[in-house]
Amino acid sequence: MKSLTRYLTFNTQKRIDFINITKDVEEAVKESGIKEGLCLINAMHITASVFINDAEDGLLKDFANWLESLAPSEPISRYNHNLTGEENGDSHLKRTVMGREVVVAITNGRLDFGPWEQIFYGEFDGQRRKRVLIKIIGE
Amino acid sequence: MKSLTRYLTFNTQKRIDFINITKDVEEAVKESGIKEGLCLINAMHITASVFINDAEDGLLKDFANWLESLAPSEPISRYNHNLTGEENGDSHLKRTVMGREVVVAITNGRLDFGPWEQIFYGEFDGQRRKRVLIKIIGE
Amino acid sequence: MKSLTRYLTFNTQKRIDFINITKDVEEAVKESGIKEGLCLINAMHITASVFINDAEDGLLKDFANWLESLAPSEPISRYNHNLTGEENGDSHLKRTVMGREVVVAITNGRLDFGPWEQIFYGEFDGQRRKRVLIKIIGE
Repeated sequence: MKSLTRYLTFNTQKRIDFINITKDVEEAVKESGIKEGLCLINAMHITASVFINDAEDGLLKDFANWLESLAPSEPISRYNHNLTGEENGDSHLKRTVMGREVVVAITNGRLDFGPWEQIFYGEFDGQRRKRVLIKIIGE
Repeated sequence: MKSLTRYLTFNTQKRIDFINITKDVEEAVKESGIKEGLCLINAMHITASVFINDAEDGLLKDFANWLESLAPSEPISRYNHNLTGEENGDSHLKRTVMGREVVVAITNGRLDFGPWEQIFYGEFDGQRRKRVLIKIIGE
Repeated sequence: MKSLTRYLTFNTQKRIDFINITKDVEEAVKESGIKEGLCLINAMHITASVFINDAEDGLLKDFANWLESLAPSEPISRYNHNLTGEENGDSHLKRTVMGREVVVAITNGRLDFGPWEQIFYGEFDGQRRKRVLIKIIGE
């Protein structure tokens, strides 16, 4: 069994942002030399997500609007978590809807994807340094 | 390390539908000959899900109603994504709530399941050809 | 390839509860002797979750309040599932938001975690015996 571990670093300008990381993951798969296996990609922070969906800007706006309606950021006093001095109670909930991680199959040395699948980093409390982990195992 | 890759194809009559695929996954596990490992099952399309829950018809109706309340399909103009000519903005959000994939343990050559766990394909923009991937790795 | 399988058992006093199981998972990883691999942790019941977030009591209260607003437990008649005699229609939906499972990378013999990541068992229909599965594969 072979394995490869890579870390990606982000520091978004906006509080909420979505970044397409498909190419980064493809490069890690290539570098691993693994032909058949599994690839885990996860946010290492609890106010961020890794998810798979369509690379379409309107949809990314829809995600941001929808998450704000499901878990509004304000008033800050809405969340017990913010009694700790944080202002990111909503970010933990938004990340939960979008998910922490994805697991993708590797077949014939490539991400085994459907026609529209793209991997995104979802940031819900940005403007600080955050990391994503890529872990690949297989043969 | 051994691996097996299988694809299932669906073309539902309804826009929203749930299909129990547990038996298909069990057959793939048997065919793989893998005794200890992990089994990934994921939708290959971004308006569909694979999830685990109870095989109870009332609950499946509850999921459909609940998802419609969380991410209504209409008005179409509700979603920026639909400015592209699509009418499935809601389907991308519904799939996000239900999840893209599940990972299931294989122990002693079988899916290591609790008493009520069943694997479902969740379709949120049907009436077209869609695929599910089964990837098994182990020994 | 090596593997290890462990089961944790819970019987919570409250209907809804969150239990930090990070130490249990760390012990299983140590026991496995696996240095590089993947660790799956999943609820084996369909009204419970395993998820990763912050070990902060206020946030756990926020999760409980938020889930109740997204999928209210009452009136019982709200859910078709409860026509079967069950009263846990809401629990299936709450578990869906929080997720069934997490997959965590193992690097250098340890859970490869960001600074605040902690693994929780989320119970949404407690006061009965439930299990969690830990499955580790790697080398």
